[in-house]
Formats: sequence, C-alpha cells, structure tokens
Amino acid sequence: MTEPKLTKVDMEKIVSLCRRRGFIFPSSEIYGGLSSCWDYGPLGVELKRNIKESWWRAMVQERDDMVGLDSSILMHPQVWEASGHLKGFSDPLVECKQCHRRWRSDEMKDSSCPSCGGGLTESRMFNLMFKTFMGPVEEEADIVYLRPETAQGIFVNFENALNTSRKRLPFGIAQIGKAFRNEITTGNFIFRSREFEQMEMEYFVKPGTDGEWFDYWVKERLNWYANLGIKKENLRLHQHAKDELAHYAVKCYDIDYLFPMGWAELEGIANRGNFDLIQHANSSGKNMDYFDEETKEHFSPLIIEPSAGVDRSALAFLCDAYDEEPDKDEIRVVLRLHPSLAPIKAAILPLSRKETLAPLSKQIYADLRQCWMVGYDDAQSIGRRYRRQDEIGTPFCVTIDFQSLEDEQVTIRERDTMRQIRVPIKELQSTLASKLSGEDLFILPLGGKIWKEG
Amino acid sequence: MTEPKLTKVDMEKIVSLCRRRGFIFPSSEIYGGLSSCWDYGPLGVELKRNIKESWWRAMVQERDDMVGLDSSILMHPQVWEASGHLKGFSDPLVECKQCHRRWRSDEMKDSSCPSCGGGLTESRMFNLMFKTFMGPVEEEADIVYLRPETAQGIFVNFENALNTSRKRLPFGIAQIGKAFRNEITTGNFIFRSREFEQMEMEYFVKPGTDGEWFDYWVKERLNWYANLGIKKENLRLHQHAKDELAHYAVKCYDIDYLFPMGWAELEGIANRGNFDLIQHANSSGKNMDYFDEETKEHFSPLIIEPSAGVDRSALAFLCDAYDEEPDKDEIRVVLRLHPSLAPIKAAILPLSRKETLAPLSKQIYADLRQCWMVGYDDAQSIGRRYRRQDEIGTPFCVTIDFQSLEDEQVTIRERDTMRQIRVPIKELQSTLASKLSGEDLFILPLGGKIWKEG
Repeated sequence: MTEPKLTKVDMEKIVSLCRRRGFIFPSSEIYGGLSSCWDYGPLGVELKRNIKESWWRAMVQERDDMVGLDSSILMHPQVWEASGHLKGFSDPLVECKQCHRRWRSDEMKDSSCPSCGGGLTESRMFNLMFKTFMGPVEEEADIVYLRPETAQGIFVNFENALNTSRKRLPFGIAQIGKAFRNEITTGNFIFRSREFEQMEMEYFVKPGTDGEWFDYWVKERLNWYANLGIKKENLRLHQHAKDELAHYAVKCYDIDYLFPMGWAELEGIANRGNFDLIQHANSSGKNMDYFDEETKEHFSPLIIEPSAGVDRSALAFLCDAYDEEPDKDEIRVVLRLHPSLAPIKAAILPLSRKETLAPLSKQIYADLRQCWMVGYDDAQSIGRRYRRQDEIGTPFCVTIDFQSLEDEQVTIRERDTMRQIRVPIKELQSTLASKLSGEDLFILPLGGKIWKEG
Repeated sequence: MTEPKLTKVDMEKIVSLCRRRGFIFPSSEIYGGLSSCWDYGPLGVELKRNIKESWWRAMVQERDDMVGLDSSILMHPQVWEASGHLKGFSDPLVECKQCHRRWRSDEMKDSSCPSCGGGLTESRMFNLMFKTFMGPVEEEADIVYLRPETAQGIFVNFENALNTSRKRLPFGIAQIGKAFRNEITTGNFIFRSREFEQMEMEYFVKPGTDGEWFDYWVKERLNWYANLGIKKENLRLHQHAKDELAHYAVKCYDIDYLFPMGWAELEGIANRGNFDLIQHANSSGKNMDYFDEETKEHFSPLIIEPSAGVDRSALAFLCDAYDEEPDKDEIRVVLRLHPSLAPIKAAILPLSRKETLAPLSKQIYADLRQCWMVGYDDAQSIGRRYRRQDEIGTPFCVTIDFQSLEDEQVTIRERDTMRQIRVPIKELQSTLASKLSGEDLFILPLGGKIWKEG
C-alpha cells in the first residue's frame, strides 16, 4: 500500500495558501504590486493581531517590571544623528552600467551583473533610511526620516517612562510599531520587506547584572516561541562573533528559525551596554542617568534588547504550522496553529443548508461572536468545509445537525485529531473556552503536534 | 459654606495631566520635540489599545457582515493618481516675505503675517502628502507617498477581500492604521497632527440601499461613542452643505464633539457613491464590479464610510472623562473613563508598607495580572494613593489591610462613588470581572456619570 506523497513545506505553498485564503496579498496588487510591501487580508490581520497580543500579554500585562510605549514613526532628525544611523546605517551599493539594476556589493560573488552580465559601477554607501520633508517646503532643514527601528523611540523616552511610572531598575519598556528600511535587495515573501512591524523591548539594568539578564531574556524569548507551538528543532541560537557585532553591541544572540529558505534570524537579543542612553544624553544635553535610592549612586543603566519582527514571526508560525497528511486517498492540508494564534477560533457548520437548521445555527454563531472571532460556512459538503477550516487553522468546528433540534446538542470536531465529541449547546461556550485555553485536553492527542509541546 | 471652586475642563489641564501621568509626551522631547508629533506613554498606549480594541470588537468581531484588513502605509503611486489625491489633496499656502513663516491662506483674515505683520507671497497649492523615495536612488520614478488615509488600501483590496472571505453584499472591510498629512498648520494637542491613526470602515452596498445604510451607520457610530461613556450633550451631528462636500461624496455627516476649543469633527460618515471602485477599475484596467448571484446582475457597489481618528477619540474620551469635584476642603480630580477604556483596571494597595502585608498583596497582584492590566502602589498615605488612581481613571482600588490576613477579605473601593465593599479574596476576580463588564452595578450610582449612561 502506497501512501499519498507528502512534500516538505516550501515557500511557494505558503505564499499560495496566504494569497488564496486571504492571509497576505501583494500591496496595491491591482496596480501590479509595490515591490516588497504586503497587505494582510481578513485572516492575516487576525493572525497578526493575535501575535502582537500574545507578545504584549507576555511582555507587559503579565509582568510587574514592564511598561508599554507607542512613540511616533517620525522623530527629530537629531535622534538619528545621536544613534549613529545617519552616518552608519548603510549598505554598499553597485549599479549595473548596462541594465541599471542595483545590487548590494557585499552580497555579490563576482564583478558582473547577476541579471544581464553587464559591468558594475564602483561601490558606494547607501543609507537605508527613508527620508521625507516635514512642513510645506522641501528644504534641507525640514528633512525627517521614517524610523528604521522602534528602539530609539524607547531610549529618548527613558526618563519620561521612568518618572511617570515610578519604576525602579531593573525594568523594561516595550513597544510594537512599524519601521521602514529602504533595503537594496528584499525578498523571501514577508521575511524582508521595506515596511515591517517590530516588537521591541529595552530592559534597563544595573551595571554588573547585565550578563544574567541577557541569559534570562534569551531563555524567556525562546520559550515564547516554543510555548506558541514552534517546534524546538526548528529554533536555534546563533551567537554573533566579534566581527559580526553591531557597533553598539557588547554581545548578541540571534534566535534563528528554519525557514523554507534555510536558517534565518527571527529575533535578535543584544546587550547594548550603555551606548544608547549616553549617546542621547550627550547629544541632547539632558541628564539621562539613573539615581539608585538605595546606594545613592548615579549611573547610566545597561540595556538588554530583545527585538522581534511581527511579520517574520507570522511567517515562522505559518511555516511551522503547515502540515500535510494522508487522509484516505487524498492529502489533508492543515495549519496546526496554536489556538491563541488561530485567526478563527471556531466555525459554525450547519449540516445542511435547509432552513430548519439556520435559526439555531445563526443563534449559536451570534452568541459565540461575543467571545471570539468565529466563522460560519454552509456551502458544499461537510467534508469540504472541514478541509477549508483545517487549511486556515481553525481549531474547532461546531456542527449543527437535525438531531440538534431534538436533543439540544452539537458536535465539536477538533482540527488536529479530527476527533468529535457531542456537547449540550448550553455548555458549548464553556467547553470551547477551556479547550482554547488548553485546560481541557480531553480530545487532544497526547504528545501530539499541538500547543502543549513547548 | 463655600464650595471649592470647580473649573471647566480646559486643554491646558488635559495636556498637563497627560504629560505628568504618562499618557502623552511630545515626540523626541529631549531634542525639543518634533512639531505636532506625539508619543503615547505607559498609560496612553493602554488607552489607545483599548479604544482600538473596542472599535475592532464592535466593527469586526461581533458582526457577521465584516472582515478586517491591514494594508501597507507605502502604496503604489498610481493609487493616489486614481483617488485624486495627487491632483487635489492640497491646501492653499502663503509665506511671509519677512519672517518666512507659512500659513494656510484660506484660514487667514487679512493679507499680512499673523506673526510679524509682514507681507505675504501669492497663494499656491501645496500637496499634503508626504513623499519619499523607494529603492536606492532618489529619482522621479521612485517617488512613493505615505498614505494620507487608510481608506484607499481597502478599495484596492475590495476584490481580494470579497473573494477570499466569500461575503455577499452588504458587507464591510475595516482597518486600523497610521496615516500622514503634511498639514501647514497643526495644533490643539493630538487633535490635528501630521502623523495620526485612523479607524476606517468601508461598507459596500447595493445601489438603492445606500440611503438607509448611511442612516444606519450614523446611528451606529453615535451609539459607539455614547456606549463608551461620552456624554450625549457633547456630541452633535453636522451635515455637510453641498459646497462643503468632498468631490467624491454624495452625502456626509460629521460627528462633532465639544472639545475644549469648541465643536470639532470626531468622525466623518460619508456616502462615497461608486466613485472609488470606478476610479480604481478605470485606472488599473481591472474589473471591480460585483456579481449578484440572485439577480444575475453586474454592478459597482456603493460605499458608506465611517472614518474615525484614534487620537481624536482618545482626546475626546479624556476630555469627557475629566472631572473635578469638591472633597472636604480639597478638589478631587477624577477621570471617569469607561472601565473598558481605563488603562489600569484595578490597583492593588497594601494599607501599609510593612512586610507582613507584602506577600499577600503581591500574590493578589500577580493573580489579577493574568486577567487585566493591574497596578500596584504602596507609597504614601492610602488617601493620596486613591487620588493618584482617580486621576488616571482606575475604576477599582483593592486595599489589603491587616484584617485581610485574618479574614481573607479585601476592600474594593469604587472610583466614581468612592464607596467601598468588603469581599472574600477568593471571589475578588469574579467580582471585579462582573463590575468591569457592567453586569454588577451594586456599588455604582443610579443615573450617575458612568458607563451605563449611553
């Protein structure tokens, strides 16, 4: 007996699934797309919201040593002078003399154009910050930049956040927001794009404690991905060698994920030392020291930074969740997303489109929407509808049949195991709540592929 | 007996409270600020998150006729040509010949500079879109714009959202995101800034039904503000006269709020007709018609757009919640924010800093953080701590005293009435949950100023 052939997840499948089911579309697609910008569709926006919410919950809400921030994308240009971005945030650029395509010279293997074979210009440094003009005239004096990272918004607000929240060291400031980099080469779907979203946290500690806090945050951040279902064998730590370190960094680890194109950075965790606060103190002339009330000392805190990407996380969660398995003589495609990340938590499926089932089904649909994002599907066979929900990662389907009208019970069908249980309608909400929170593992496989793995 | 004098809310008080308590700071403040950009601090970011979450819940999660979207800020330049922004999104600009300040000439009363009295240049049109260059060389061909509204991201994705979600008319696409306008004059705190956040929804309907849907959405949106506690006397509808209507609009109402500086637009609700889809269909050459399976007709849907601002809403909620009342011989400042908008839902206050109370207090703090954003304060007298929580709108304080160690009960103190009840610790979470959801009004005033008003 030959099983249907299962292929490994590849990028093409992910891109195609995302496009077809409304996770991610090319930006401005009707105009041919805009290079390396992406729009999140009805399902993608929910996945992204869930990722950001999980991060905020773990990093801010559940902790007593953290506050949030939402600083603006446009910042004072002096910020980028002090941070070193104006001078140093550049890549070496060459242009083909023949076809005028542009390339990063540090990524080229030989001296002719990879596209047409033409000769290349001399390499020159190209600053990756998008610039624009604030105020009604385009003058040198009015140049501002789209932030290339959210971190600087945190550093310049260190005193504001400290004083208004009355926190003491060690404490952190967490932020989620858009950043922009005018990359010379982009690609790998949403992995590297010119507009992207970051989840960054800066953790301020006393000198001498930075080593242990660095280790703490590496572990904490690895666990975050694992707890949300990323398989441990697809995660690795990569320590930057001395010559890989950014100018501000004392030590840096990347959390790499095994993407379809290979291992690549998912998140960077850096010990930034006291570089940032000192730069901004010097540049602004403001005192940014911390006063320790116990020891009566003034000093500049050291900073540990876990910096994650929302879009990269989304791609990793999608790739990791993607699965194909033989099901009779077909292949079942299933996104084994952690329930807290799944765009739709449950789908209401009346067994038939007959009008007798509609009122009860619609009522259940309306009731459950008060709690979660819930779907409704009454088109085609129940088997096809299960497949549609499997493919977008919906953890539970709720089937309403003619028997439901008699016994006031419905069937819950579980995505990963395809097992079914029958529950009274009046217990449906609480049953789903406990299953979604992972408390009730009754119908989940032991040692299976789902969310208790981490 | 003379009561302490109560003054009306004014902008200065709001700005000062926001700055002092960590709601809103000037952007890049250590560098003197960046004109008309603002950073949301630890409390402000939570307020903003709650506003956006309330909108998303009401507009997307709870409805069966809506999907979400998150399109990119950078879009194909042809989008802005088709939408009319490249040509028409301009304000008339004059410059003072003496001091070189720039002004909007349509807002000037006479022909000399309001700042120095100098003469003014001829008026010329100034486009309000921020422009930047995508890709590594600044060439005309690479100009892209920061979107001045999120709406166009919805229009260009109409077919993508429709086909992947398999919705039928009438249905809507909702989006929250940043937009940028290079305003000539800005001001009134976060009311008009160059970088801001929108909550926009485009509702697609059959021709002939747009009138009733327009009325539906005006009512729906008014209720949203009222249900979140905005006093009805501070809201009004303003219908645009023919000469006020934007070129695309068939009909438009503003929902105005009585801000400290006077009535001003909080949200616009427009009947955009079929302008947008037809423009993009013509410009892209793509068919953007809707096919009605019942009538077998192809047509271009009409669009009703409720367009709200996150920052303006935040300002309105803050101003409306701000209250001063006499309390003995002092004045109590209290932010009567709706519980679902309050940045901190409950504050844990051990009556004394003595070590005996700390373990229990910290345990309660840790337990409640699993559910909500919760604060902790053990500094200074209990009266001052209540005041600090009142001022930031925390609906409930939980006081742990020495008796708590004996009887395992704590005191819940309610912000608006200052009434107190004693509850068993094991019922604390469920009691707070029902009070926060407005189900249990036991200690809330009847006909009071709080959230059942709407």
